[in-house]
Amino acid sequence: MSDHVYKIVEIVGSSPDSIEDAVQRAVARASQTLREIRWFEVTDTRGHVEDGRVAHYQVTLRIGFTLED
Amino acid sequence: MSDHVYKIVEIVGSSPDSIEDAVQRAVARASQTLREIRWFEVTDTRGHVEDGRVAHYQVTLRIGFTLED
Amino acid sequence: MSDHVYKIVEIVGSSPDSIEDAVQRAVARASQTLREIRWFEVTDTRGHVEDGRVAHYQVTLRIGFTLED
Amino acid sequence: MSDHVYKIVEIVGSSPDSIEDAVQRAVARASQTLREIRWFEVTDTRGHVEDGRVAHYQVTLRIGFTLED
Amino acid sequence: MSDHVYKIVEIVGSSPDSIEDAVQRAVARASQTLREIRWFEVTDTRGHVEDGRVAHYQVTLRIGFTLED
Amino acid sequence: MSDHVYKIVEIVGSSPDSIEDAVQRAVARASQTLREIRWFEVTDTRGHVEDGRVAHYQVTLRIGFTLED
Amino acid sequence: MSDHVYKIVEIVGSSPDSIEDAVQRAVARASQTLREIRWFEVTDTRGHVEDGRVAHYQVTLRIGFTLED
Amino acid sequence: MSDHVYKIVEIVGSSPDSIEDAVQRAVARASQTLREIRWFEVTDTRGHVEDGRVAHYQVTLRIGFTLED
Amino acid sequence: MSDHVYKIVEIVGSSPDSIEDAVQRAVARASQTLREIRWFEVTDTRGHVEDGRVAHYQVTLRIGFTLED
Amino acid sequence: MSDHVYKIVEIVGSSPDSIEDAVQRAVARASQTLREIRWFEVTDTRGHVEDGRVAHYQVTLRIGFTLED
Amino acid sequence: MSDHVYKIVEIVGSSPDSIEDAVQRAVARASQTLREIRWFEVTDTRGHVEDGRVAHYQVTLRIGFTLED
Amino acid sequence: MSDHVYKIVEIVGSSPDSIEDAVQRAVARASQTLREIRWFEVTDTRGHVEDGRVAHYQVTLRIGFTLED
Repeated sequence: MSDHVYKIVEIVGSSPDSIEDAVQRAVARASQTLREIRWFEVTDTRGHVEDGRVAHYQVTLRIGFTLED
Repeated sequence: MSDHVYKIVEIVGSSPDSIEDAVQRAVARASQTLREIRWFEVTDTRGHVEDGRVAHYQVTLRIGFTLED
Repeated sequence: MSDHVYKIVEIVGSSPDSIEDAVQRAVARASQTLREIRWFEVTDTRGHVEDGRVAHYQVTLRIGFTLED
Repeated sequence: MSDHVYKIVEIVGSSPDSIEDAVQRAVARASQTLREIRWFEVTDTRGHVEDGRVAHYQVTLRIGFTLED
Repeated sequence: MSDHVYKIVEIVGSSPDSIEDAVQRAVARASQTLREIRWFEVTDTRGHVEDGRVAHYQVTLRIGFTLED
Repeated sequence: MSDHVYKIVEIVGSSPDSIEDAVQRAVARASQTLREIRWFEVTDTRGHVEDGRVAHYQVTLRIGFTLED
Repeated sequence: MSDHVYKIVEIVGSSPDSIEDAVQRAVARASQTLREIRWFEVTDTRGHVEDGRVAHYQVTLRIGFTLED
Repeated sequence: MSDHVYKIVEIVGSSPDSIEDAVQRAVARASQTLREIRWFEVTDTRGHVEDGRVAHYQVTLRIGFTLED
Repeated sequence: MSDHVYKIVEIVGSSPDSIEDAVQRAVARASQTLREIRWFEVTDTRGHVEDGRVAHYQVTLRIGFTLED
Repeated sequence: MSDHVYKIVEIVGSSPDSIEDAVQRAVARASQTLREIRWFEVTDTRGHVEDGRVAHYQVTLRIGFTLED
Repeated sequence: MSDHVYKIVEIVGSSPDSIEDAVQRAVARASQTLREIRWFEVTDTRGHVEDGRVAHYQVTLRIGFTLED
Repeated sequence: MSDHVYKIVEIVGSSPDSIEDAVQRAVARASQTLREIRWFEVTDTRGHVEDGRVAHYQVTLRIGFTLED
């Protein structure tokens, strides 16, 4: 949170297990192409239902990373 | 998410254990009377406190289900 | 939720483990100085990332407690 | 506000007299078909004007009631 | 609410007595220059305090009126 | 918009052709079970894409109808 | 969008045919008294229903025009 | 509204009688510990229902007071 | 902020120099035709870019003025 | 809407003809560089006016596409 | 932004000179009683007008500080 | 603002000096890789505090640029 310039991208992750796991999957996938990810913000929590049970959680994140000079 | 007409209802579930369990309880209860539930969206996450600890989580969901022809 | 007057304060808790644990830490810390906490509402869910993994969750709560006469 | 599942419905009440009376009329009408109404939240306050005076207030409520097991 | 074109203006009324009286004062003042006012929507409810008591309520309204051809 | 009590339900309609057709399909489907529908409000406009073209529009409506005494 | 001062007014147009026609009617009516209208923003899309069909669309616009020196 | 520094606190008042009375009770309670309260803003209006009637109104206020030098 | 009726208009000012200068230009222009302007609120801060530099700031204001009796 | 990770980008399309055509142009342009676009959400509908008529509609979309592994 | 618990308070600062000076005055005043202030967020920018010129800017801040163990 | 397709990206700039300087730094950094930047919108204004003084301002921008054919 110092004097850098950040860029923010929006990613949706999902998981059959938990909201935290959906967050982690989105962060891990974004890390494949973006270095220097610093923070995230959850903007939406949704999910799908099959046969009366939650099939998976789907979490929308704003992810911030440092733009290198 | 195909060419159907959906109806959305709003349900509040609660659980002493976790946010995910509160979601699942709301979905399970709604499934007793609504067939064809497809998705949910979390619009509010609250909870109650007793003796300085979380007593239960209370999650408000918008739940979408297919209207059959 | 009866005929009392409440005050609401805003607290941010964090945890390396889960959103629920971050909530609980915020509630526990607030309980050190505020008696009669009754409820909370989650208004923001964020977190920090290190080396492509979630380092900790950071949850903003509005916390309501009874003002005694 | 205990460990139940609630459903929320949205009702619009109106009254020529006051906002409170419009709320009460919406609650009373909903009570004809819904048992176990517990709380309401005002989401919109509008009204109609005739000849430069308020003809009636129109209040939109989200109304929560317990789903029995 | 028929096939007309409406214009909306924003007016703030106040009253020492009640929210409804503040609404009515705003509507009455607007009616001095605008004919054909049809509806209003309350967008903000504020007030001022003197010596620990409400001195007056201050209500912001969006007011809609028919544009004549 | 007179002195009645209204109920509001939330319906999602879709159409491959236009936003207006998606609105009309939602209204027509709701009219099969609800008499006295009076108005709607569009709260969300989405759609699905296949092969780089819009496959269908999906419109969320709040639909208001009179509750008969 | 240059170095001018703009004023914004709010107008509601309606049409039995389409959302675009309701926009155009609002813009055309506003142009009778306002010169130099430059842009609009849709802030609300509603409509009325008769006999299970959309009777007309009703679109609220913020309309911006240049204030001449 | 002059050149001072203000602090804002959030208080919930309730009353069985009216929204205005709930506002006044919150302001009166806050005045027991805060001097120099100047204004309030209503951010939420809720209530509880017993036996199909409003049992009490519950109003959330942001209350602003001058910080003395 | 006393017992008057206010009207609110929405004005967009711009300046190549600063946000404050854009605010002042909007207020100055509005003062040519409106007497008794009392306050403003910034609702949007935008700007235009030319050759990788800010060409001017563009600030949307809600401006409140007293309606004289 | 299965167990994938999505990325969301924001695109503005415009058309002199209709809102739907502006959506389609934005989707078509995005498809030149993004494969696997699945859905869109309209977040803003604006337009420009020339000589008292709508010159073109301008629609802001959030567009979601699958991130391939 | 590490693993601490924060509290957030809301403060309004004002200045005749600039938005930044109003922010700084609010932060400086809060620092007289709160140690360990870490960050702020601007939630509202308003001001007062006298004789057609900005008399002072008034900025509402959420201010976060570390709660010590 | 003509008939083009735009893309919007979200960038956070910061500056120890002023909000305008933080905006300019974000725009300048984005211009290193994006040609044809046309406009920006400020969506968040924050900052960090050290020793009771603002250490730097941190401004989040949505930045729009033309997609070339």
